[in-house]
Amino acid sequence: MIPYRDLFGPGPSNVPDAVLIALAQPTIGHLDPVFLEVMDDVVADLRTCFMTENPVTFVMSAPGSIGMEASFVNTVEPGDKVIICINGVFGGRMQSICERIGAEVITVEDEWGTPVDPEKLSDALKANPDTAVVAFVHAETSTGVRSDAKTLAALAKDAGCLVIADTVTSLSGVELRVDEWQLDVVYSGSQKCLSCVPGLAPITFSPAAIEKASQRKSQVPSWFCDTNLLAPYYMDGESKRAYHHTAPVNSLFAMREALRLAVDEGLPARWARHTNAAEQLWKRLEAADLSLPVALEHRLAPLTVVSIPSNVNDAAVRERLLQTRSIEIGAGLGKFAGNAWRIGLMGANAAIERADFIADALIESLG
Amino acid sequence: MIPYRDLFGPGPSNVPDAVLIALAQPTIGHLDPVFLEVMDDVVADLRTCFMTENPVTFVMSAPGSIGMEASFVNTVEPGDKVIICINGVFGGRMQSICERIGAEVITVEDEWGTPVDPEKLSDALKANPDTAVVAFVHAETSTGVRSDAKTLAALAKDAGCLVIADTVTSLSGVELRVDEWQLDVVYSGSQKCLSCVPGLAPITFSPAAIEKASQRKSQVPSWFCDTNLLAPYYMDGESKRAYHHTAPVNSLFAMREALRLAVDEGLPARWARHTNAAEQLWKRLEAADLSLPVALEHRLAPLTVVSIPSNVNDAAVRERLLQTRSIEIGAGLGKFAGNAWRIGLMGANAAIERADFIADALIESLG
Repeated sequence: MIPYRDLFGPGPSNVPDAVLIALAQPTIGHLDPVFLEVMDDVVADLRTCFMTENPVTFVMSAPGSIGMEASFVNTVEPGDKVIICINGVFGGRMQSICERIGAEVITVEDEWGTPVDPEKLSDALKANPDTAVVAFVHAETSTGVRSDAKTLAALAKDAGCLVIADTVTSLSGVELRVDEWQLDVVYSGSQKCLSCVPGLAPITFSPAAIEKASQRKSQVPSWFCDTNLLAPYYMDGESKRAYHHTAPVNSLFAMREALRLAVDEGLPARWARHTNAAEQLWKRLEAADLSLPVALEHRLAPLTVVSIPSNVNDAAVRERLLQTRSIEIGAGLGKFAGNAWRIGLMGANAAIERADFIADALIESLG
Repeated sequence: MIPYRDLFGPGPSNVPDAVLIALAQPTIGHLDPVFLEVMDDVVADLRTCFMTENPVTFVMSAPGSIGMEASFVNTVEPGDKVIICINGVFGGRMQSICERIGAEVITVEDEWGTPVDPEKLSDALKANPDTAVVAFVHAETSTGVRSDAKTLAALAKDAGCLVIADTVTSLSGVELRVDEWQLDVVYSGSQKCLSCVPGLAPITFSPAAIEKASQRKSQVPSWFCDTNLLAPYYMDGESKRAYHHTAPVNSLFAMREALRLAVDEGLPARWARHTNAAEQLWKRLEAADLSLPVALEHRLAPLTVVSIPSNVNDAAVRERLLQTRSIEIGAGLGKFAGNAWRIGLMGANAAIERADFIADALIESLG
């Protein structure tokens, strides 16, 4: 038996019963007409959540990191110049992927715990007018920082670049407007603010990104991630669904339910719910003299980084919460390892009473 | 609501209730000690099913085709000479992946519906003594053919090559002995003879394959598939589980249960069950004057290809089975499209009464 956990880490978040029930429906074929309807529903609601009309919008059959890989391998060719903004673990992962592709990588680096600085990006674009792609993380899961995706994208588009944005910890939890903000490739994960089971990567490609992918000089290096092969399977309204791979049918049943819950709630209401819950958490933690290293205006509502007081044992507190209360919080990652915790209030957990619940538990576990 | 289907196509097969119930257990974190125990169980039982003691044995977080991609991107470097045996769709996919890597690909081709010819492989190896890797499909899902993996691997090993084998439709349904047969990289899918939900790729790497992957001159082109990064997360008995990506926690609950069912049954008994069911199906179909294009000694028990009689409408029969009886059978793929069906008796469906059930239904639907 798997124990029930209250999941206040950086994801997965708690999955609502309705989503788990959808998950456990009987498996059917990946080309069954009933399953094609499921995919149509998923694509339609995912467009709503991304606020996009991009035809090529679908859910990849693997975790969010495959969304990152697919974003780059489709739109970046060997030798392309790519500017990657790094202010945490996941910008660093983008760099690793681009180096494997053989891209020329320019990094724009900001301190962990601060957002990407638009002026630094602007300078990098001026110094590198031949840049093809700009990439950044909208919501850094390693640091709890929200960067200004709209401003960063506007700078990149003015310079004629494609824009890739990681929204793993922002989709449906933080304001995100793919079309209005001119984001070209945007990917996310299932297990954060959507409160779906882990293992799926929502993704969307603008027509400009698809044009780049379809007119490459070299083949996309990954067969699994090649959007030229994937799009014909996922596209709704197409007469022919070209088989590419066997989709994770049950996980997509769950994703349909999770997306339906998000769309029924409405995005602005859902964003506000995440903000309200986070503000309650911040208030409670600061009232207990805990320090939040990210400046208020850049804090990411779904994920809060808390400095660990110097007299407190990181692992012992996390262990105590898990073993005595069945509560998970996140350890620090990278430069924050050992000196910060990460507390998620995502999806189903983004509620004021849940914020009070985890604040009470954490504060008591310190005493 | 998703309708119940009897799944007699090329996979997914019907998933037992115990596996669906395991799937829908509450989501927990991917670094939770309880989840690490789940992974340990999965790895142990997967080694049993592969008949291997390879330390690097795990379940990739994506469908079988990522297993294929991971096998090649880790062990093949640009310029490496690779012999790929092609006797159906999936050998062709291997070729596409290797071309994307920049390998020098030599193909050994056999007719669809026949196995890989060991003599042709032997000739190719003699003509190309600098070959680094030999790859073939043990059980071709597009043609219902079983190739002689043991003999093919012996030829390749004698020539000093690494051996990659696709066992998507054979793992736990057809005799497969990874260590005894000297297979270096072997991958499969969750949704065939294991009767787990689709979306996972069991995989195992021999020490020689790991050595090749860790001593490459170039980086593995895929971050997601890089076994140098993946192995530390999955390895049992390691004191530190290095986070790589968020595992599909619920699907791995299901996989643990599916593997447990296979190990409890015992592999020889499970192989025999698949053979017995298939022999019943073949007997029934041939008694109804239906033609099976694959020679008896090369037929794949889990998947039978049936020629469509010339006076019968392919799509109409499949549509009637689906709409009136909620039964799925598979259409022909590639060269078999329109002139053959594919009937799977995999995992939970590999039983004589299930063979009779689908034979009755198919024969009646022709009348």
